Amino acid sequence: MSIRVGIYGYGNLGKGVELALKQNPDMTAVGVFTRRAPESVKTVTGLPVFSADDVKDMADKIDVMILCGGSSTDLPKQTPAIAQYFNVVDSFDTHAKIPQHVANVDAAAKAAKKTALVSVGWDPGTFSIARLYAESILPQGKTYTFWGKGVSQGHSDAVRRIDGVADAKQYTIPVENALAAVRNGETPELSTGQKHRRECYVVVKDDADKARIEREIKTMPHYFDEYDTTVYFISQEELNEKHAGLPHGGVVIRNGFTGVGNQTQQSVEYGLRLQSNAEFTASVLVAYARATYRMNQEGAYGCKTVFDVPPAYLSAQSRDELLKTLL
Amino acid sequence: MSIRVGIYGYGNLGKGVELALKQNPDMTAVGVFTRRAPESVKTVTGLPVFSADDVKDMADKIDVMILCGGSSTDLPKQTPAIAQYFNVVDSFDTHAKIPQHVANVDAAAKAAKKTALVSVGWDPGTFSIARLYAESILPQGKTYTFWGKGVSQGHSDAVRRIDGVADAKQYTIPVENALAAVRNGETPELSTGQKHRRECYVVVKDDADKARIEREIKTMPHYFDEYDTTVYFISQEELNEKHAGLPHGGVVIRNGFTGVGNQTQQSVEYGLRLQSNAEFTASVLVAYARATYRMNQEGAYGCKTVFDVPPAYLSAQSRDELLKTLL
Repeated sequence: MSIRVGIYGYGNLGKGVELALKQNPDMTAVGVFTRRAPESVKTVTGLPVFSADDVKDMADKIDVMILCGGSSTDLPKQTPAIAQYFNVVDSFDTHAKIPQHVANVDAAAKAAKKTALVSVGWDPGTFSIARLYAESILPQGKTYTFWGKGVSQGHSDAVRRIDGVADAKQYTIPVENALAAVRNGETPELSTGQKHRRECYVVVKDDADKARIEREIKTMPHYFDEYDTTVYFISQEELNEKHAGLPHGGVVIRNGFTGVGNQTQQSVEYGLRLQSNAEFTASVLVAYARATYRMNQEGAYGCKTVFDVPPAYLSAQSRDELLKTLL
Repeated sequence: MSIRVGIYGYGNLGKGVELALKQNPDMTAVGVFTRRAPESVKTVTGLPVFSADDVKDMADKIDVMILCGGSSTDLPKQTPAIAQYFNVVDSFDTHAKIPQHVANVDAAAKAAKKTALVSVGWDPGTFSIARLYAESILPQGKTYTFWGKGVSQGHSDAVRRIDGVADAKQYTIPVENALAAVRNGETPELSTGQKHRRECYVVVKDDADKARIEREIKTMPHYFDEYDTTVYFISQEELNEKHAGLPHGGVVIRNGFTGVGNQTQQSVEYGLRLQSNAEFTASVLVAYARATYRMNQEGAYGCKTVFDVPPAYLSAQSRDELLKTLL
């Protein structure tokens, strides 16, 4: 009785989901749904490809649909729409819009007696869980999230849009002193800009004005102006060779205080070192697809988040095995 | 509508629970239950003290009882006994006996329509949760648990029982090279002894034979013989001054692999740096007391573990607040 999973959208994330499903023998990948011409899409493991237009016809052949579109325009529409027909999991990551997204999806899923799990990944996702556990256990204290070292695709795109730029990659990197102070148990006030610096590796078009490009990057509002930013001009060959991957990661640290007069320091740290951001997110989505299926079987309809899922629901192991081997 | 909490047993852990409850405005400490003469016990915050014999009389005045006894002889009897009258939380930490303990407590709690949460703390506890999440998300890979640097009370006791020893403190410390290799993404086979070394700070009685004591420590089966152990002889004054606390901590690391041919390295690390082992465990117990109460209100009777508890149940914040501020 394998859990039958569909993949809706086939970019880096969809490919990661396809590969992650191979690692989970209790789940079966049914196929990929795309808005492109199905015959133009070749899957990594030879999965069949269907047109996104025909998704409804597969309602009785798929237990959970993993939505692999983007957060800015795809998921706000797709997740409520697909939740009318399927249990769904998405990685909606626009933090400020999560409450609205949850409300939209909840209405659709409840009406159809489906279960939807949204904002699954690592931030939002496992980082959120780390913050929630640490703050619940240590109500007195301060939580810090440091991102990186890793590639920010949004910032890389922003650099690429500058006139004269042929290609670019941007790394977000924790400021070493700030991270060291927090790891030392201190609780400084730190803005996002005080916690992170940015490095840009930029390929310019012929005759482009490097000084102007560097200035435009460093003064770009929101993206770079509040950060210590370093710009390196390199060749396309070097960019392809040394900066091809999409690594990411970071840490969530809570410095809490317990005991008489709240004088005892207690620190919790959760961290990720990821060679592939998309593949890790995909692996999280697949584990939560298992949970989504189980929650739907139990009648837990509507839109849920990672905060609502008991950890055991993520595992392929039985309760007895978990008690024996992991507890 | 505050959650009314009782504290059963009043050693370091019970005191930690008393102080942790002060940090949680949605919970109220009702009192301490002790097997000693109640009038002989003075609580840190002035909580009333009751005889453990009278606990049944308080059944309608307490929503959750936090059991603060030891795992070797207290909890195996106390948890099933008290679960006949109260929702309970305990920190039972004898890993090999957890399945039997769960079965015993489950029968008692189910019969009484109570909810019991056992083996709550950090290992078993938050370390177990970290292992479960990481292994569910990354089914291909290897998990490592390193303990320390921290005081092992069992090992300190074992040294103290040696003839000629007046007092002693034992620290468990991760082996630096082993930890560095794992943090570097490697997946070596490591025994517990290859992951940890031990340091003993020992105060001897007058004229005791230090060479013999050192030999007895280093060759003690199970406790020390498989470890690189260093023994330092110091004065009682130095022990009191520099080794008074009960710090502990450690890390759980999973090195997983995703992508084509499982070639992409993905590492998850969860770590604790605790100045007080007992106070942190107490804080975990208190957060899970909140969850226990909620699960009982929902009719989830019987014996549960941290694997069964949705993270949101630990928090005093509402779902809306959690979605807005932590997800």
